[in-house]
Amino acid sequence: MTRNVAVAPETRPEMHQRLCAAVEAAGAQRVDMAEAEGLIWADPANTGAFPELVADADRLEWIQLPYAGIEPFAHHLDDRWTWTCGKGVYAPAVAETALAMALAGFKHLHGYAREQTWSAHVGRLLAGSRVTLLGGGGIAECLLPLLKPFGCHTTVVRRSGHPLDGADRTLDVGHLSEVLPSSDLLILALALTDETRGIIDATAIDLLPDDAWIVNVARGGHIVTDDLVAALGECRLGGAALDVTDPEPLPDDHPLWTLPNCLITPHIGNTPEMGLDLLEPFVEENVRRFCEGRDLLAPVDVALGY
Amino acid sequence: MTRNVAVAPETRPEMHQRLCAAVEAAGAQRVDMAEAEGLIWADPANTGAFPELVADADRLEWIQLPYAGIEPFAHHLDDRWTWTCGKGVYAPAVAETALAMALAGFKHLHGYAREQTWSAHVGRLLAGSRVTLLGGGGIAECLLPLLKPFGCHTTVVRRSGHPLDGADRTLDVGHLSEVLPSSDLLILALALTDETRGIIDATAIDLLPDDAWIVNVARGGHIVTDDLVAALGECRLGGAALDVTDPEPLPDDHPLWTLPNCLITPHIGNTPEMGLDLLEPFVEENVRRFCEGRDLLAPVDVALGY
Repeated sequence: MTRNVAVAPETRPEMHQRLCAAVEAAGAQRVDMAEAEGLIWADPANTGAFPELVADADRLEWIQLPYAGIEPFAHHLDDRWTWTCGKGVYAPAVAETALAMALAGFKHLHGYAREQTWSAHVGRLLAGSRVTLLGGGGIAECLLPLLKPFGCHTTVVRRSGHPLDGADRTLDVGHLSEVLPSSDLLILALALTDETRGIIDATAIDLLPDDAWIVNVARGGHIVTDDLVAALGECRLGGAALDVTDPEPLPDDHPLWTLPNCLITPHIGNTPEMGLDLLEPFVEENVRRFCEGRDLLAPVDVALGY
Repeated sequence: MTRNVAVAPETRPEMHQRLCAAVEAAGAQRVDMAEAEGLIWADPANTGAFPELVADADRLEWIQLPYAGIEPFAHHLDDRWTWTCGKGVYAPAVAETALAMALAGFKHLHGYAREQTWSAHVGRLLAGSRVTLLGGGGIAECLLPLLKPFGCHTTVVRRSGHPLDGADRTLDVGHLSEVLPSSDLLILALALTDETRGIIDATAIDLLPDDAWIVNVARGGHIVTDDLVAALGECRLGGAALDVTDPEPLPDDHPLWTLPNCLITPHIGNTPEMGLDLLEPFVEENVRRFCEGRDLLAPVDVALGY
């Protein structure tokens, strides 16, 4: 059955256009809000426009949000409608970013980018390295296949310890301190909870080899920033590549900006540009499911708020 | 049969130690020059020591050089002995560097490394991109498996056009201009010859999409540097990541150093550190073959000089 789907607001033209294309590719009828049975929200930054836009949308049943985490929209959640989000959509982009940052660290690209002279040859091989992934979710699932052709020795450390396909071994998080001394590369890709906040502190850092790299594409709060700054400053660590920081955004006068063995990216795990390439086919699939009356992907539990 | 193998000179201690380990792991007897039947040359930069070291090596039959290209040793070649080199050994390291530089460009890591403030989110997905590899040798062979999990659309352009395993398609170099307009990423990994010198000039660059990246891990002379500088300055190209330059080393006042869409690395395709991880097992294998009287890997033709 063809259903009526609106794409709004129009404040981000490229996103609006790409999501309109997804709606049409899925075979839905693209309509204005007044006739919409489904709504694809097309501007993550513009949540304020929501109440007015849906005020007269009497036929609205379903709202697709563009976020992986829906916190910015949480206060609009309303069980008159079915809500879906972008959970899991962006994991491939974050996994790419994690590998890019790891390779940059191993090849010293952060250092060379800052030079304006032909400098010494440094850099090491990722191939054959011992890589520990802390977290066994979507990012780890997407990252393991990218690491596979490098022949890395991969260990996933996760809460459950349940084996993750593609990892050489999976351990529960109680074994973290046993794994760190033999980790050339530690990639943080876990959820931030009370148990994982500050999980990488001075003790954990000192267990890593002195030339190990830490890549954080999860949340800044997993690392005790002051402990990391101290370790990097004393070269007790090879380096850190951080796409997330604590505090975030990182203030301009923060010592991490100027440490030669640190690369900071401003939470680019997925950018709007990257995200659209992933969101567009995902939305297309969900619109198709909506038209066909099938279960939608990435449902939001309105009562729980996520 | 156990054979006597020397490792010399000792001017580069880590290299000497690693190559001694390789000799012993292969089951050869490690000896001084006077007794040596085989010699593993252990300092690429120190060719001057060669004549004196081999002066009394009456039993010497075989010399293993650590280079991929043996130019620095060419004047010492002498058909009294069998010579082998490191041809093909370093391709995996160069392939890693090529991927690292491509990902850095796509994720804007060169730009973020230069910032000391939380800046705008940019960056794009490598996954699904159209990648053209110019050159179908060892680097391309090693790079294609690394690209495979990204689901890139890969085209190898090589002199012969003979299909390269792992590429979506292989074309002969006459088709280069047809391929460039649909290349998001162009990786140069070909040999420098009279035909390939300057192959990437203003005409070729202008055929690439305006947001394409060029990665050069081959030789600086493949690119007409002034044409590249002009294109980067006018943003007719997404960016360039150059591990090799023309001139090389790149002078301190060269405009490439300060272009925001350019990343220069000082010919780190393989570093001594990386190279040893690859050279050590290769030398071990060749020493084993020497002991067993089998054909050696990477033989040098003394008459042809390569």
